[in-house]
Amino acid sequence: MPSLTTPFPLLRWLRRYRRVDAGADLLAGTVTAVLLVPQAMAYAVVAGLPPQVGLYASVLPSLAYALFGTSPYLGVGPVAVNALMVASALAVVGHGDPAQQIVNAQVLAAISALTLLGLGALRAGAFMSFLSRPVLDGFTSGAALLIVLTQLPALLGVSTHSGPLLHEVLLAVWRALPAVNWPTLALGTASIGLLALSGLPLRSVLGRLPLSSLQADFIGRLTPLVVLALATVAVAVGELATRGVAAVGTIPAGLPTPSLAFLRASTWLELLAPGMLIALISYVSSVSIAQGLASRRRERIDTDQELFALGAANAAAALGGALPVAASFSRSAINFSAGARTPLAGVVSALLVGGTALWLTGLFHDLPKAALAALIVVAVTPLINVHGFRRTLAYSRGDGLTFGATFVAVLFLGVERGLLFGALLGLAVYVWRTGRPHVAVLGRVHGSEHFRNVNRYHVETWPNLLLIRVDESLYFANASRIEETILDQIAAHPLVTDLVLIGSGINHVDSTGLAMLETLLPALREAGVRTHLAEFKGPVLDRLKGSGLLETLAPGQVFLSTEQAVTALAQPYDEPVSI
Amino acid sequence: MPSLTTPFPLLRWLRRYRRVDAGADLLAGTVTAVLLVPQAMAYAVVAGLPPQVGLYASVLPSLAYALFGTSPYLGVGPVAVNALMVASALAVVGHGDPAQQIVNAQVLAAISALTLLGLGALRAGAFMSFLSRPVLDGFTSGAALLIVLTQLPALLGVSTHSGPLLHEVLLAVWRALPAVNWPTLALGTASIGLLALSGLPLRSVLGRLPLSSLQADFIGRLTPLVVLALATVAVAVGELATRGVAAVGTIPAGLPTPSLAFLRASTWLELLAPGMLIALISYVSSVSIAQGLASRRRERIDTDQELFALGAANAAAALGGALPVAASFSRSAINFSAGARTPLAGVVSALLVGGTALWLTGLFHDLPKAALAALIVVAVTPLINVHGFRRTLAYSRGDGLTFGATFVAVLFLGVERGLLFGALLGLAVYVWRTGRPHVAVLGRVHGSEHFRNVNRYHVETWPNLLLIRVDESLYFANASRIEETILDQIAAHPLVTDLVLIGSGINHVDSTGLAMLETLLPALREAGVRTHLAEFKGPVLDRLKGSGLLETLAPGQVFLSTEQAVTALAQPYDEPVSI
Repeated sequence: MPSLTTPFPLLRWLRRYRRVDAGADLLAGTVTAVLLVPQAMAYAVVAGLPPQVGLYASVLPSLAYALFGTSPYLGVGPVAVNALMVASALAVVGHGDPAQQIVNAQVLAAISALTLLGLGALRAGAFMSFLSRPVLDGFTSGAALLIVLTQLPALLGVSTHSGPLLHEVLLAVWRALPAVNWPTLALGTASIGLLALSGLPLRSVLGRLPLSSLQADFIGRLTPLVVLALATVAVAVGELATRGVAAVGTIPAGLPTPSLAFLRASTWLELLAPGMLIALISYVSSVSIAQGLASRRRERIDTDQELFALGAANAAAALGGALPVAASFSRSAINFSAGARTPLAGVVSALLVGGTALWLTGLFHDLPKAALAALIVVAVTPLINVHGFRRTLAYSRGDGLTFGATFVAVLFLGVERGLLFGALLGLAVYVWRTGRPHVAVLGRVHGSEHFRNVNRYHVETWPNLLLIRVDESLYFANASRIEETILDQIAAHPLVTDLVLIGSGINHVDSTGLAMLETLLPALREAGVRTHLAEFKGPVLDRLKGSGLLETLAPGQVFLSTEQAVTALAQPYDEPVSI
Repeated sequence: MPSLTTPFPLLRWLRRYRRVDAGADLLAGTVTAVLLVPQAMAYAVVAGLPPQVGLYASVLPSLAYALFGTSPYLGVGPVAVNALMVASALAVVGHGDPAQQIVNAQVLAAISALTLLGLGALRAGAFMSFLSRPVLDGFTSGAALLIVLTQLPALLGVSTHSGPLLHEVLLAVWRALPAVNWPTLALGTASIGLLALSGLPLRSVLGRLPLSSLQADFIGRLTPLVVLALATVAVAVGELATRGVAAVGTIPAGLPTPSLAFLRASTWLELLAPGMLIALISYVSSVSIAQGLASRRRERIDTDQELFALGAANAAAALGGALPVAASFSRSAINFSAGARTPLAGVVSALLVGGTALWLTGLFHDLPKAALAALIVVAVTPLINVHGFRRTLAYSRGDGLTFGATFVAVLFLGVERGLLFGALLGLAVYVWRTGRPHVAVLGRVHGSEHFRNVNRYHVETWPNLLLIRVDESLYFANASRIEETILDQIAAHPLVTDLVLIGSGINHVDSTGLAMLETLLPALREAGVRTHLAEFKGPVLDRLKGSGLLETLAPGQVFLSTEQAVTALAQPYDEPVSI
């Protein structure tokens, strides 16, 4: 495994490159390209751009990621959720001019690149981690459902104009229903059926044939291409264009010359916020894919270097006339399982797509749009994570609520506002949860040095002594509640003269927590109670010492263990105590 | 101490009321009223309202709080920071019509009341706790500085029109400087000087006279009234009105009849957000004052009942033609130290202010506005908490940053946006901090059952065994970083076959943390490492069991203590190990 400290991880891989690696990378890159070509065109259409823009987004960006990235497996290019975010951003600034929309997509890629490179320079990738898994899953599920809905007009052969939200799309489709084009619907439905078969059913048939598992796998992966080819042939042979079936039409051959013309666009300011959100989602999803694959082989990726690599890939997308890019889960997984060894597999894919753009665009002239829509529907439907929602809800109601609310917010507020809503809700749920910490009154298990909750165990206690353990860091969201709980306990135990705060669960005390202790300790002293600390962690205690709190604590003391505190402070019950 | 479960805590107090309590309450209520009358008028002026509105806000609301509140000490009425928030809200909807602005102030009080009563019904007072101490202090400091600045025109005797932000006010004052009215400036400066003397210097002089400490205290507290009286006499005798000194003028005598006319105002929607923020600040500051005073006498307040009491006080303010109310720190502290025993002290204050509004408003005709401005400047300047900022910064750079940034944001963005900015920044700083948890590799202290950090202690380790302790709850902000750290450690110890995760510092695992473990455990197993858990807390372990994670853990085991894990798993170094 190469060191991760070079800016060009690829060079390290090449130094120890062997012939067997080349074979593996060639095969994996080819298998991935077979899925990449149709997906790239389809996702460009999702973004509201001509299909060839998706091909452009799969050449230079893939090469840039191969040069800078630390994962050998990532398939970088257009992805579904990003494409929807691009569509949402372009809808706001768009004026119907397709050439201008390509420039706007480049601006989004450039903003995304600058965001990622800026965070990379600050080594601040971890800043992205404020998005929780329920928020990301709810967001992805909502975006996937919206993508499926936006494919309905193409599958029905109707043209609609509507906003991107659930109710807007459904209303527009409902109104257009009388104009449905039946040949288009038949073609789309058949494509979906065939593509769905390429999953389990086809695999099970292939498994019974006398093929190696690699051969069976490869044939299974050809399905999307085969379906698109069949649909194209059907359109051409059946002259379905005359019966109202819309096809992709003429795609210009070749690749655009890299250009900086997008720098002069007037839409930078308007696209700033969406571009930054696209960068955020691209990074979080790509890194989680890369980490998932790397950990299966006891390998590591460098998350800060990944900021540079994804930034470079998006800069290449901007230069190369394309939309923002990220890692695709399906293509990365295929690249991994097909045996990719180094980023050269990605180079192979990029070259094959480049060749397609140069020489094979003529093949797509009769490709029906409904077949592309079918490909999208089958690809993104698994992202609607119903099982994940059920599991999350079963594990934690707060997290399940966040998942569901983010999903609904994306459907009805749109991708950008839905994501912000989810992020804030996730934070609120966390603050709510840690704001209600577990606070236990402890006693000693007879004949031991173990201390347990008096409500759950039969334990030894002392009339003058109260042992309280707080199972959470002291910070602003829980400081006043913890203070209340302690004062309630003191009020309920009027004989107590010594309180021992047990800090084994306190990882941090923020300045609100400190201020709470600074008012609590003198108040307890005025009320005739000495406070002591036990089992506080070294770093926490150091910080409290620096603040001068330990002087406020006097005559209370600091004990290393609860047992020591009890030995020093406990007075036995020397007379019958009335309850 | 009365039980807190009744909706009318006052009744409980009255049941055991004794004669000595009556004397104490009468004295404390009178002392507080002496400060309340001038402050109430002054803060109404800060809010951009006629001075008598401040008096109205001190009668019905004080009585309502006395009936429902659980603190005997709180002085409820107009307060400085709320007054600034009211001014900011009224500036947006204002049309220069003073009668309409009073209605708008009532609407703000009503929204504030509904917010507090709604949260009270949900028993959701703790929801307010997402405001940290540094955010509150930075907010209060910034608001206090803005209040001081808005008094400059009155002190200089100039009239300006400007927005409420720092640079707007300063620019307007700078432009108006040539028109300064010297008699006004002299009167204002003299008032500030005298009021400042009423602090330490006067106390020290009074201390040397043959007075009881209560007498000396009472004389000291008369200073504001004396200064205002002197200034009024100076205006009347010196006929300063003819020399351009602005006075309060005619104040209508009497109290307004409670009325619901404000319900028909058209500004409810526009005032919704500011009204809710005012409720938030009122509650948080009032409860912190009440808790601080109660804890000094080993008493408790009921924070949920306080929501009802403050809601009722604001409803009374809306009905009684006044602005939103809260507890004043200075008046509550005076009430406490003057010996208040029950909420009847607040009733005494309310009746005295009511009498003033009925019969004594004629006294204020010649009261110069500059003297009221001087009173405000002296009252709010101590709220600009420079010492607190230095201490917070010394204790925690993140909290200091939050304090300072909130302060600056209030000055340049205004009270509402500044508060929201501060609240979000406080959350971001907390997520940033807990996103970087302390993760330690442990070894055993020779001859003991204690385990310590290998980097800080000379401890025993084993070639096949890695002990890792995570000192933070596993949640979305740190899950990927903890995963990375663990995988880095595994990569750095190629001989390790057993990893023990020590969970003594883990108070909670959210679903992002669970998902991390669900991918980490199989990845480690594929890489030839069994993972075990030790010292996980009961509730955390229960939840992980429910999720099915423990099946994923197999063949790894769950140990109660680290020592048990080491006993079961450790293999000694049986041959020289090359490093």
